Amino acid sequence: MKIALAQLNYHIGNFESNTNKIITSIREAKQTGADLVVFAELCVCGYPARDFLEFNEFISLCDDAAKKIAAECNGIACIIGLPTPNHNPEGKDLNNSAYFIDNGEIKAVVNKALLPNYDIFDEYRYFEPSTSFSCIDFKGKRIALTICEDLWNTIENPLYVTRPMDTLIQQKPDVMINIAASPFAYNHDEERIAILSDNARRYNLPLFYVNHVGAQTELIFDGGSLVFDNTGKIADELPYFTENTAYYTLQDDASITFEHQTTQKAERQSDIEQIHQGLILGIRDYFYKSGFKQAILGLSGGIDSAVVCALAAEALGAENVMAVLLPSKFSSDHSLKDAEDLVANLGCKSETIAIEKITDAFEGALHPQFNNLPFNIAEENIQSRSRAVLLMAMCNKFGYILLNTSNKSEAAVGYGTLYGDMCGGISVIGDVFKTQVFELARYINRDREIIPVNTIVKPPSAELRPDQKDTDSLPEYDILDAILVQYVENRRSSAEIIQQGFDDAVVHKVLRLVNLAEHKRYQTPPILRVSPKAFGMGRRMPIVGKYLT
Amino acid sequence: MKIALAQLNYHIGNFESNTNKIITSIREAKQTGADLVVFAELCVCGYPARDFLEFNEFISLCDDAAKKIAAECNGIACIIGLPTPNHNPEGKDLNNSAYFIDNGEIKAVVNKALLPNYDIFDEYRYFEPSTSFSCIDFKGKRIALTICEDLWNTIENPLYVTRPMDTLIQQKPDVMINIAASPFAYNHDEERIAILSDNARRYNLPLFYVNHVGAQTELIFDGGSLVFDNTGKIADELPYFTENTAYYTLQDDASITFEHQTTQKAERQSDIEQIHQGLILGIRDYFYKSGFKQAILGLSGGIDSAVVCALAAEALGAENVMAVLLPSKFSSDHSLKDAEDLVANLGCKSETIAIEKITDAFEGALHPQFNNLPFNIAEENIQSRSRAVLLMAMCNKFGYILLNTSNKSEAAVGYGTLYGDMCGGISVIGDVFKTQVFELARYINRDREIIPVNTIVKPPSAELRPDQKDTDSLPEYDILDAILVQYVENRRSSAEIIQQGFDDAVVHKVLRLVNLAEHKRYQTPPILRVSPKAFGMGRRMPIVGKYLT
Repeated sequence: MKIALAQLNYHIGNFESNTNKIITSIREAKQTGADLVVFAELCVCGYPARDFLEFNEFISLCDDAAKKIAAECNGIACIIGLPTPNHNPEGKDLNNSAYFIDNGEIKAVVNKALLPNYDIFDEYRYFEPSTSFSCIDFKGKRIALTICEDLWNTIENPLYVTRPMDTLIQQKPDVMINIAASPFAYNHDEERIAILSDNARRYNLPLFYVNHVGAQTELIFDGGSLVFDNTGKIADELPYFTENTAYYTLQDDASITFEHQTTQKAERQSDIEQIHQGLILGIRDYFYKSGFKQAILGLSGGIDSAVVCALAAEALGAENVMAVLLPSKFSSDHSLKDAEDLVANLGCKSETIAIEKITDAFEGALHPQFNNLPFNIAEENIQSRSRAVLLMAMCNKFGYILLNTSNKSEAAVGYGTLYGDMCGGISVIGDVFKTQVFELARYINRDREIIPVNTIVKPPSAELRPDQKDTDSLPEYDILDAILVQYVENRRSSAEIIQQGFDDAVVHKVLRLVNLAEHKRYQTPPILRVSPKAFGMGRRMPIVGKYLT
Repeated sequence: MKIALAQLNYHIGNFESNTNKIITSIREAKQTGADLVVFAELCVCGYPARDFLEFNEFISLCDDAAKKIAAECNGIACIIGLPTPNHNPEGKDLNNSAYFIDNGEIKAVVNKALLPNYDIFDEYRYFEPSTSFSCIDFKGKRIALTICEDLWNTIENPLYVTRPMDTLIQQKPDVMINIAASPFAYNHDEERIAILSDNARRYNLPLFYVNHVGAQTELIFDGGSLVFDNTGKIADELPYFTENTAYYTLQDDASITFEHQTTQKAERQSDIEQIHQGLILGIRDYFYKSGFKQAILGLSGGIDSAVVCALAAEALGAENVMAVLLPSKFSSDHSLKDAEDLVANLGCKSETIAIEKITDAFEGALHPQFNNLPFNIAEENIQSRSRAVLLMAMCNKFGYILLNTSNKSEAAVGYGTLYGDMCGGISVIGDVFKTQVFELARYINRDREIIPVNTIVKPPSAELRPDQKDTDSLPEYDILDAILVQYVENRRSSAEIIQQGFDDAVVHKVLRLVNLAEHKRYQTPPILRVSPKAFGMGRRMPIVGKYLT
């Protein structure tokens, strides 16, 4: 049996585009002689469709699309994913389903049993879990078809009390197929491979696995679809961060051969390489799927905006990036110079708009109220917010989207100005710790100096008052980030973190800052997610909570 | 058996405050001769604790609090709610539990079976549902103790496939007790009464029900704890929006008597009265639980900011409200006058800061880029954003929290400026449609003219360009709001709404505006929730989705 895996970039709710992509793939696979082409989980509507799923019309549109797709399945079968009505009056109204379509008809429906509802996942919000499991017979092979999380319950402390494959294996299948929507995190590819390999070995079956590729607002899907033999060895690994279709023949002895090898197994990429590729895809898809082309950002001469500018230039083309230099009286000479060097290195557009007259106007207007009170955070934030107003005015006049340039360390401890540098349509590096931003900068410079070396080596500063340094308010970033990884990503308590050797007072200060900044993070743009725990939809915290504040 | 119902205002993660409140109530109930005092669901940690629940230390702190509470239970029993570790290695790590404590010991643990995971609820994110159910024997009575949603599966198209009371009733209980965390919506009290009454009648048992009261960021809990006799008739209804403890005796014939009647059944309040009380509580608790006292807002002379100002003055005291008048050259004379009249009527503080020099400075700075392009939304937004910068500067200098004054109609269609009038720490009327804002204004004026009549009768305008009216861009509010109710709250499709008699083009325009504004709503403050479907945590939409845009 010849199987095609179609790893495609869908767009949530864009039925026309998704259906066309699927149909084009079916036609190509048919021409290539495939018996079966496999698409990803919920490919018909895109993932995650979130509360669109609560609209009956949206579910009908999925059904309409499935009918169009089914009409193409003559001489070839396909597996697609879509939400379908739950015909049992008890339980949630929908199932997360896979259709096995052959000869223009839905031959089998498989419903997902294990519904992820942690981190960024909300599947139990919409779907009723399946409790019955049947294999599908096709061309002399018996297929155990499951959906994503259904294979993820093999660990020691499993999240679910059922394991669909334990039922399916009793029906003696020849092969496993799993369709997925598994978002990127820099360490997720290894976890995914380990769990899927464990399934192939445990059930002694070859396994075909198809993932999404492409970004949906903050969620980046990295592709990397996989084929395993029945010993759990990787037979093939599709490319990451790009669309691809690959063909395999499942032989009668359960071995897998490549008739037309379209993919090459890449070497494992480093975390920073993956983050770099993920962010490029994230920016590109955010703009493309929103119908925008041009980005704008404030370029300070510091490393965060420099890295975002370089990423945007690579994602959108330098000609579509407008860098705005917004100096104040507190900007150092090197800042302007470093920003100008970057613009020259990238070849992007730039403007320079001094903010002093604006901040003077604000301070003049507030003079009766402020009444010679000393300069403090109020005046600092006026600078940051004046810049945001200028950048947004440029957006409104010329149709740019503003890129936010805050990093994860700042976002964590609230070291940023709400409605100032925390503005933007999308946060590019809000899930990248400052220490990783430095790594990204060095990676971007791997072939030539794009980001000025001075930007990388100088001490970070917000330049909102004379001689300000980040370390005036915060611990050194290597310490800060190490604590943040433990608290935010590993969810350790202060006691546990202190036990790891960090200073008591520093740990308490950092954890307190993180919790006190919840109200700021609530109003920040969506953040491209590259880690296993990003701020945003995957981390849901009370704002007025009293814990650790 | 004498039962006390303690309807208290908890604070998420504030173990000291919550534990003290619970212990104080236990002591009072003991003095009053109660056998049992009943507290609300997850009262120990507050509801919803959200991802605090993922920290082992947080769960330990709950356990510590439970031990302190248990030590008080001598000569009196109590029921408290808290998260507890799931001792089964399979499934989620926690249970949503109720402890029945007597003689200083945990005599019974009941785990919640039906875990709401819709709208604002995320309980399946944390908790494993219970599958076994046992009654509790106490002082000759057999108690069927359940937790909130466990009684909510009685409707025709039930969300869950199990019904705990169907098992418990077989053990022949004498009484039902349900502990809850049921947030306010203006129509929710009636639904709650209907469902609970139906349970009492169906199982032919008296029912004691205890709810939270108080606000946790955007969620307002309205109290209104209830007692039903075994025919489903309301025996008592605790007050709404305030703490209260009430005492009842469950007689051997299952009838309920009041030894000390502390409550009086209020007449059903109108929706607007409820919304009014809910918003007052929401503002008050947001400030109190955040440790702030003073609010600031921009007062335009329009109805939205006038209503928010009046609500804030009632919630916090007029002396704690700073109203800032921020006129521009487009502000009409009556706007300033109307705003000044309101300030005088309320007796709150006020400042006037003209914005023209600031907007001139912005336009001057942008002149090289804008290059005489015509005045448009860019210049309109500069005005709105300049006001926000001024208000935030006042916050930063003096420690105010900025109140957002956007209404739900505007928030729906994106008729507001991001980082401008959409700023604020909390959105007071973001879940109140414009037509309801008018009703609120009339309600606020029920005894005397607080909000100037001219503010209520003049046509709404953003006053960002000459002679601007909201109806230049939007349908009349009665039409707009009626469509929005159908789309946002009832989740109807365009076809269904048109079938109700609305104009085709208007419906399509409105739905498109709602979906296109998703990126703006993502960055708005938390919105005090008063309807069954508020923007924010209860409505989760893709931003780059293509549906209806």
